[in-house]
Amino acid sequence: MNQPTLAPESGFFRARILLGYDGTNFFGWGRQSDVRTVQGELEAALSTLYRQNIETVVAGRTDAGVHATGQVAHADLPEGDFGFEFESLVYRLNRILPEDMRIKSFERASNNFHARYGALRRHYVYKIQDGNGIVEPIKRLDIAPWYRDLDIDLMNQAAASLLGENDFFSYAKFRPNATTIRDLQRFDFERMDDGVIISHITADAFCYNMVRALVGTMVYIGEGRFPVSWAKEVLDKKERPSDSVVFPANGLTFVGVDYPTDVEMIERFNKVLAKRALSINDAVDEEGE
Amino acid sequence: MNQPTLAPESGFFRARILLGYDGTNFFGWGRQSDVRTVQGELEAALSTLYRQNIETVVAGRTDAGVHATGQVAHADLPEGDFGFEFESLVYRLNRILPEDMRIKSFERASNNFHARYGALRRHYVYKIQDGNGIVEPIKRLDIAPWYRDLDIDLMNQAAASLLGENDFFSYAKFRPNATTIRDLQRFDFERMDDGVIISHITADAFCYNMVRALVGTMVYIGEGRFPVSWAKEVLDKKERPSDSVVFPANGLTFVGVDYPTDVEMIERFNKVLAKRALSINDAVDEEGE
Repeated sequence: MNQPTLAPESGFFRARILLGYDGTNFFGWGRQSDVRTVQGELEAALSTLYRQNIETVVAGRTDAGVHATGQVAHADLPEGDFGFEFESLVYRLNRILPEDMRIKSFERASNNFHARYGALRRHYVYKIQDGNGIVEPIKRLDIAPWYRDLDIDLMNQAAASLLGENDFFSYAKFRPNATTIRDLQRFDFERMDDGVIISHITADAFCYNMVRALVGTMVYIGEGRFPVSWAKEVLDKKERPSDSVVFPANGLTFVGVDYPTDVEMIERFNKVLAKRALSINDAVDEEGE
Repeated sequence: MNQPTLAPESGFFRARILLGYDGTNFFGWGRQSDVRTVQGELEAALSTLYRQNIETVVAGRTDAGVHATGQVAHADLPEGDFGFEFESLVYRLNRILPEDMRIKSFERASNNFHARYGALRRHYVYKIQDGNGIVEPIKRLDIAPWYRDLDIDLMNQAAASLLGENDFFSYAKFRPNATTIRDLQRFDFERMDDGVIISHITADAFCYNMVRALVGTMVYIGEGRFPVSWAKEVLDKKERPSDSVVFPANGLTFVGVDYPTDVEMIERFNKVLAKRALSINDAVDEEGE
């Protein structure tokens, strides 16, 4: 299931899906038999339209409560007449899907396109209201509150010390047989006019709970509990992070994925598989956040 | 009840409350015995803390589904020791109140302060996603979708034709014994970078459903169904608006109120009462949106 393959099976074509969701009332992306998930809703809608079981592969397997504005998935869809035009899929799916998830585009992709293994980098945003400030109720669903004042200059210094290719073992919840080497390409904090702090975090891929552990560690530095140097010390220590530094899911939004050109996609795909995992199956669970 | 008085009763002081709420799950501001309202929740929390019945008066009696970021209310609170500092009220109330409403400040006001009759002007914002565009799920709670493309230049021309002191009878749902003369001070439309259209609407006060009828009428002009001149023709016709032009509540947010200085407040208060109503009781229900 979700076995990565370079090309769709005969009689199928690959489609690329761009979607957003309010993660508040989902148990995350990944399909589970007994709870409401984004993948579960999407696959159920596609399977209804195509009258057969349709599965999807996603760029970032978001956790329960995490939102998305620029999530990308792919699906292999059967060729043939199913009583509707492929071009009408966005409209048809959004009529079926619940309001807290929306398909933004649905396009025929190259057979080499792979939403997960083809991704060059993922972009996340994390929002914090610090200093016990009031979170505007209408904006509360994607902002995490923090009671102490945060010094974003300190947080930016600490964040910069983690940039580059590092072993993020200390910022990742345990997953068996998974490498924790990642290339952190952007990590900074900015205070907006309304006082909300926005963090931009970009990496080639993220380990499980990595963004939320990174943000939580910076918060401890920004409130003065630990010095700026602590961020790098934690990295070098190679110990599993405490649950207390893993910040709440609701502050986190998956905002986008970058993909290479079609000709570079196959090369990229093979490189990721070779680098990341002992086998294809071992690699399946390690990404996301 | 909510009888406007210039000064609190003896043994009480007037407090000014700034608050915001996500109107999605409230049946509007005004207290009702059997459903969840913002006033009901606020008064219940205050009554719990003060161990007696506390009532509030609000600047804008918002309808079910309408949001607020800058709502203002007042309450007359008893002097004396109730086991907590007045300064801790924001914190104490927000611990009691549900997450979809937050007190932003709670201040001792002049005895002449009156949240409703002292207000110089109210500010609303309305958000629209036109052209059948996808509403970002995480932002969906305060954006109204519209299926056709809207030309905001036409809407701005039409909106400008309604500015000034006019009888907004044609833009107000029926309320007995209520004048419909209002001074519309700002009404314009702007398209943001993400494609969402934001309308700013300011008046001394609004008739019942007036903002939503104004916006709906401009939408019909923006989609080309009626010419720009229709806005003024509707105004001059003095016929009750059709329900179809009253746009959905969820796009509407009460963003602020302006008050005069303390010395001007008494004068303002008397002027509003003289102008608006046959009696004080008749005036109670006519405002809001």
